[in-house]
Amino acid sequence: MNRRILLAELAQETPSRIVFLVMDGLGGAPGPDGKTELEAARIPNLDALAVRSQLGLTDPVSPGITPGSGPSHLALFGYDPLEFQVGRGVLEALGIDFPLKTTDVAMRANFCIVDQNGILADRRAGRLETAQAARLCRMLRDIRLVGAEVMVEPVKEHRFVVVFRGDGLAAEVADTDPQKTGVPPIDPKPLNAEAERTAHLAGEFIRQSRAILEGQPANMVLLRGFSKYPSIPSLPELYKLRPAAIAIYPMYRGLARLVGMDVLAGGNSLEDQLRTLRSHWDKYTFFYLHVKDPDRTGEDGDFPGKVRAIEEVDRHLPALLDLGPQVIVVTGDHSTPAVLKGHSWHPVPFLLNSPWCVPDGLPFSERACGQGSLGRFPAVDVMGLAMAHALKLNKYGA
Amino acid sequence: MNRRILLAELAQETPSRIVFLVMDGLGGAPGPDGKTELEAARIPNLDALAVRSQLGLTDPVSPGITPGSGPSHLALFGYDPLEFQVGRGVLEALGIDFPLKTTDVAMRANFCIVDQNGILADRRAGRLETAQAARLCRMLRDIRLVGAEVMVEPVKEHRFVVVFRGDGLAAEVADTDPQKTGVPPIDPKPLNAEAERTAHLAGEFIRQSRAILEGQPANMVLLRGFSKYPSIPSLPELYKLRPAAIAIYPMYRGLARLVGMDVLAGGNSLEDQLRTLRSHWDKYTFFYLHVKDPDRTGEDGDFPGKVRAIEEVDRHLPALLDLGPQVIVVTGDHSTPAVLKGHSWHPVPFLLNSPWCVPDGLPFSERACGQGSLGRFPAVDVMGLAMAHALKLNKYGA
Repeated sequence: MNRRILLAELAQETPSRIVFLVMDGLGGAPGPDGKTELEAARIPNLDALAVRSQLGLTDPVSPGITPGSGPSHLALFGYDPLEFQVGRGVLEALGIDFPLKTTDVAMRANFCIVDQNGILADRRAGRLETAQAARLCRMLRDIRLVGAEVMVEPVKEHRFVVVFRGDGLAAEVADTDPQKTGVPPIDPKPLNAEAERTAHLAGEFIRQSRAILEGQPANMVLLRGFSKYPSIPSLPELYKLRPAAIAIYPMYRGLARLVGMDVLAGGNSLEDQLRTLRSHWDKYTFFYLHVKDPDRTGEDGDFPGKVRAIEEVDRHLPALLDLGPQVIVVTGDHSTPAVLKGHSWHPVPFLLNSPWCVPDGLPFSERACGQGSLGRFPAVDVMGLAMAHALKLNKYGA
Repeated sequence: MNRRILLAELAQETPSRIVFLVMDGLGGAPGPDGKTELEAARIPNLDALAVRSQLGLTDPVSPGITPGSGPSHLALFGYDPLEFQVGRGVLEALGIDFPLKTTDVAMRANFCIVDQNGILADRRAGRLETAQAARLCRMLRDIRLVGAEVMVEPVKEHRFVVVFRGDGLAAEVADTDPQKTGVPPIDPKPLNAEAERTAHLAGEFIRQSRAILEGQPANMVLLRGFSKYPSIPSLPELYKLRPAAIAIYPMYRGLARLVGMDVLAGGNSLEDQLRTLRSHWDKYTFFYLHVKDPDRTGEDGDFPGKVRAIEEVDRHLPALLDLGPQVIVVTGDHSTPAVLKGHSWHPVPFLLNSPWCVPDGLPFSERACGQGSLGRFPAVDVMGLAMAHALKLNKYGA
């Protein structure tokens, strides 16, 4: 019996509330003065909470693995990220709030440049400007396929999303991106018999794209990550929770919707997010509050910016605690050290507070969490711990 | 290869002795003054031992899971508690020292009350007094079934045990307890073809019970947890140990017997238990010494009582150490914080002493164990660690 099924068998509905305060990319690494972003930040409220909480470090996937936002969030919500996978096409569609149907096939697409012999010269068309790419996307909307509707949506720079909608489509089609220049793009190949028609439609989409894009700053497209909306048992089904998400960025709203959360509307500042939380407090038993800035600044290599982003969360923490959640978890989905300018494999600082915890008496930082009594553990265990502390799990066995 | 099989392959018999001192429900949570029961207890002997030992925290099943005594003990003895499961009927029978045969089917039964339409009015017959229930059990011994012997034994209040003995019985029968009143009890349903006859016998048992109980303070029975004595490879087979159990409560004696331990007779005080240990010291290489009081007092919400129960163990520790075991493990099967009045998911304090350990220099408490060098680990790994420190495991690979 796997752990998710075990939890589902033991879960009971109670009115107690769990809040996951997820600072995207929270974990860091030492900057020039030897401190991590979290260590450099002045966070009196988080430190005070940490002192009366239990700390640990989580591995989103497993030690040494740098996760994307999809796997790292799935783990936090209790889904083994190696068992449940969200395809790149679907993730890209979620990221622009695209209303995917379960029968759609979504692809992540790049505008690119091929030479007169059809050889790939630039896989990203010089990182085409977003406005330019949007114009090309509008042109591609003239494409007509037999037996499937086509939707084309710009994302950012050279990246866009293609969705085929229709009956009997399958996602088992190989990428057309050869991942290098000097060779031609690969024709879309079906990976099984059911996907033959979809691969054929993709081939036709590429042919028509090339004709439409003739003479444009990008004259060809690459298709990757053919995928369908995955079937994931929802948090209400699994854990008898009434879950809500308060997230500003579309991809996180999409991931939350994927696991059965209600996605709450509201303003974009942290203050707005807390106002949304407060006004929905009575309706839900689980809140996922997503804060993007620590990751955004980390990705930019902006160490002081990430420090400030963490400090801003600290300033709003008292308003959250005032609501009196039975269980509050403060953590990240993964680490994004500014010195690495990107996601990393570093284990993620984790804090859990409840009336039943045995406080570690430590402040909140990577190093303090490394000393915490929760030890180092897989992020997929977070949901079970939180459910336990909210007294939402029955006993296993007599 | 799973870990149990690996250990079995590497195990060698040696005269070194391992003692597991298991304080049932040892782990706690902070009481009113912020200390846990273990922290509040004056335990100079345990602290002195801890200082020269290695500490850690164990998860009996997995983080967040509150285990019953069955799964938590199986884990301590090295059996994955999700792989090996002891049915409720069998556990209840073990708990009254009932001599189950491997072909028997045991059920946990309740006396209950149904109205004139057969609708369940009280699932526990007002928690019938034990003496009354014993009288009704004696009446039910008149039941005769074709092809199986029936045994009926009282447990406590409305609870009793029913055992069918005969050839070709199967345990795959669904509970008859609907878990709520206002509906009739469920007829016993076979869950596979082999269990059809057993389900039929259960139906006949219920029919005759109802006729016999007409006009009594309980007029019906509910049957749950149909189960057979599980087939578990024994500790002597697996680990080449000669294991003995010194436990007062029947369920723990039963669990010990289940994994192939000799269950030693003796008096009921801790002093008696240590006398039993001493007098059998030469005959065995593994001793499981079970102390119930920390759990009993924790279940009662009796914080000072649990503190005293731990202190009592501390007073007897020197007598145990005087025997000179090569390896001594002091831990619990699970946590039972007095503030929660029941088993909990809290990881369990764990201490291991041997001539080969690298001492942590810490006292014995939940928080000290959270700092221990053994970290937080699954209880199923305890047996391997103890075997290693007793030099009872050969090298793996060349």
